[in-house]
Amino acid sequence: MKAGPVRESFLHSALADEPLARFDAWFAERGAAHPFRVRRLPFSELRQWRFEPGAGGLAHESGKFFQVRGLRVRTNHGPVREWDQPIINQPEIGILGIATRVVDGVRRFLMQAKMEPGNVNMLQLSPTVQATRSNYTRVHGGRRPQYLDLFTDRGASAILVDQLQSEQGARFLRKRNRNMIIDVKGEVEPHDDFHWLTLAQIHRLLRADNIVNMDARTVLACASVRADSSSLPAGDPSAFSVAGRRLEGFAKDLLLSLSNDEPGLHSMDDLVSWLSEMKSRAEMSIETVPLEELRGWRRTGDEIRHESGRHFSVIAVEVEAGSREVVSWTQPLLRHYSHGLAGFLAQKIGGRLHFLARASVEPGNFDVADVGPTVALAGSEDGSWETPGPPFLERFLAAPPAAIRYSAVQSEEGGRFYHFQNRYMIVEVPPSEVVPLPDDYVWMTLAQLDELTRFGMVNIEARNLLACLSLT
Amino acid sequence: MKAGPVRESFLHSALADEPLARFDAWFAERGAAHPFRVRRLPFSELRQWRFEPGAGGLAHESGKFFQVRGLRVRTNHGPVREWDQPIINQPEIGILGIATRVVDGVRRFLMQAKMEPGNVNMLQLSPTVQATRSNYTRVHGGRRPQYLDLFTDRGASAILVDQLQSEQGARFLRKRNRNMIIDVKGEVEPHDDFHWLTLAQIHRLLRADNIVNMDARTVLACASVRADSSSLPAGDPSAFSVAGRRLEGFAKDLLLSLSNDEPGLHSMDDLVSWLSEMKSRAEMSIETVPLEELRGWRRTGDEIRHESGRHFSVIAVEVEAGSREVVSWTQPLLRHYSHGLAGFLAQKIGGRLHFLARASVEPGNFDVADVGPTVALAGSEDGSWETPGPPFLERFLAAPPAAIRYSAVQSEEGGRFYHFQNRYMIVEVPPSEVVPLPDDYVWMTLAQLDELTRFGMVNIEARNLLACLSLT
Repeated sequence: MKAGPVRESFLHSALADEPLARFDAWFAERGAAHPFRVRRLPFSELRQWRFEPGAGGLAHESGKFFQVRGLRVRTNHGPVREWDQPIINQPEIGILGIATRVVDGVRRFLMQAKMEPGNVNMLQLSPTVQATRSNYTRVHGGRRPQYLDLFTDRGASAILVDQLQSEQGARFLRKRNRNMIIDVKGEVEPHDDFHWLTLAQIHRLLRADNIVNMDARTVLACASVRADSSSLPAGDPSAFSVAGRRLEGFAKDLLLSLSNDEPGLHSMDDLVSWLSEMKSRAEMSIETVPLEELRGWRRTGDEIRHESGRHFSVIAVEVEAGSREVVSWTQPLLRHYSHGLAGFLAQKIGGRLHFLARASVEPGNFDVADVGPTVALAGSEDGSWETPGPPFLERFLAAPPAAIRYSAVQSEEGGRFYHFQNRYMIVEVPPSEVVPLPDDYVWMTLAQLDELTRFGMVNIEARNLLACLSLT
Repeated sequence: MKAGPVRESFLHSALADEPLARFDAWFAERGAAHPFRVRRLPFSELRQWRFEPGAGGLAHESGKFFQVRGLRVRTNHGPVREWDQPIINQPEIGILGIATRVVDGVRRFLMQAKMEPGNVNMLQLSPTVQATRSNYTRVHGGRRPQYLDLFTDRGASAILVDQLQSEQGARFLRKRNRNMIIDVKGEVEPHDDFHWLTLAQIHRLLRADNIVNMDARTVLACASVRADSSSLPAGDPSAFSVAGRRLEGFAKDLLLSLSNDEPGLHSMDDLVSWLSEMKSRAEMSIETVPLEELRGWRRTGDEIRHESGRHFSVIAVEVEAGSREVVSWTQPLLRHYSHGLAGFLAQKIGGRLHFLARASVEPGNFDVADVGPTVALAGSEDGSWETPGPPFLERFLAAPPAAIRYSAVQSEEGGRFYHFQNRYMIVEVPPSEVVPLPDDYVWMTLAQLDELTRFGMVNIEARNLLACLSLT
């Protein structure tokens, strides 16, 4: 299938690296405009949240929002075969949506400055709309989110991207959101908390730590700039021009990897076969159990924590906000410790850039195994990594600076997680090096990762990394 | 992506319509060679099967094979919002595999003559291998299935197709099988129960009732003959030649619809969006309950049946066989009454053949909604259809003979179902007619159905119909 006008407009937007001075001023001003305070609470001071009897977990009395439940996991996969953990249950499909318009010949994305209680820096850049089903039905009595009608009223816009995508399978039980990008037909009424940005500008912001939030990144990961070979010059020169811009080095390699005219090292049929094998082989049985029966976890007055100091803990917070739908509320959050790490190894194989994917088996996965990045692991309270670490971990921890194509710290969803950050890295391996692979790893081109993403088979850690790839 | 040599070899095999005289003689001989007797039993005479306490259902004492469990369903989808039913639980991924080889320049498929207790005619044509995990581990003490090593030993063959595909979501709880087609590297040791056939020969057999079994059809549905436009003549003549054969009429339309160079009425992004909407909108909660608590179902000494006489019943049988892995066994089966119906409406839109898909929401679906055929409904004890019938039912029941592109009765899995047959139909609507569509219906090309099949999003009723499409 050829690249259509939508993908062309994404490509041009990804090359439109306009100045960010106006954005910077606006973002600083927004941060100052919104009073926002978060403080930890004992569980007993949570309002409308309570520990349900049995396996109901920590839940809101309306039955809405989400619950923190106890999960018992048994698997034949990986070094640990049986464990207990808390997990977030939120069995509804929300909308994460970005409204776009072509203005002055370039597609622009309407981004929102949004506070979330779990963000280390409070304010981050989010999609135009971040709406749970509770938002539509206004369970907490708040306002209907700004611009939601553009996504739910089909006359108002054309849909460019609309895919169901998962969240962290180690933290959420089968959670999926609808990731949407729309083209708005008419003018969009301005609002102080919103700002138009090109894809290239967003990519520039993604090079900094903790500005673009997780919900924005997962939607942007679906904004493929997939190219067809007819838009690329013949041969393999060291640089070529697209839309008046000269692309060279890694940016050129990225665009070639996004072309779907050549299959890459493996065909898509091979990759589907690999994933079938991974799904067939891994068995994972899960059952919900009462939180107080979780083995290895201790509940104090204000925390449910693992006795090892690893993983995460469950805490309660009170939020006072001026810009949210309601002025004050309390809620549980999953607290994380030092940074985790998620990274892709990349390598030019047969002249074309490939990324090393791993079959990721997590208890909350919608299907058994998803396509994940080369490495993904959580931090611990004392900052140490698990021992022995997963394959290829050292290649990220000890990467030579010249091989690092991307490295920044990004926050995970601040509405559910407290200070959950991961360092995201892309590290390139020289083409000459032979990398021996365990059989749950496989090389893919970006076009293939993109195709698997479209069908909901790529996990959020891998999609986060895809969102950070920049052509400028 | 261009059609590779594998798809080319499938295309040529689909055009190689060789005589079937040798097959007919072999198949008749196999039917005579195998004594096979099935008789109904009271549940109390089942050996090693028993009604477990609680929600365990009717189960084998080994814990293997499958269980017939009680299911309680609540949904916001469709005319009936709440019901109980028995359902088959078999939470393991089996292999359905066909071995192929290119002999005399044409790819040939190794098919097996196989008896199943639920088949109306006992003997049908099955894949080379039909293996549950119980087969590998030989729970019932039988032999390892013939040729299984070709599929599990990766040195012995190259994998051409390897996809996880679902079974009936109204009868199985999240059941999936690995559908495989392999290219065998060396000679294949002959065995009396096996016969080599071209795709065209299999398609010819599919025009008759109840010869090619469900397991063979689901694998064949993955054997795409997807073409690229470079193999098709330019323009739109009334006929063209492929591999020395002149294609015209419906066969030509099929091949054009299989070309993935043009998107069709909707782009793949549009179709993914439609399916995202269907999955977001439908809610379906299921819980297993004890069989004796199923509302509307009555258990007698030899049957669990619905009081309406509709749907199906659970029975027990004893099997005595000469060709199976063991000589005699007992098991439960789901008994069906008169034929059900599954059909696609087809229409040329913009010169290209499209098929009318419906979002199918079933309690046992792995995901919420799959891509189903235009109509799919079960028969009843008295042969009547449900009233009111689903949209478009009348177009099949009252189809003018000149519009019927395919019509035959095929059996569903005879190892689980007793006399479960469906009439499969393709009915073509004139290009000039405007068909108003409810929003859970959408037109797709064959190339798009094929792509969605690859990622496990097309249900078994729709795949059965795809398997029956013939170019000869």
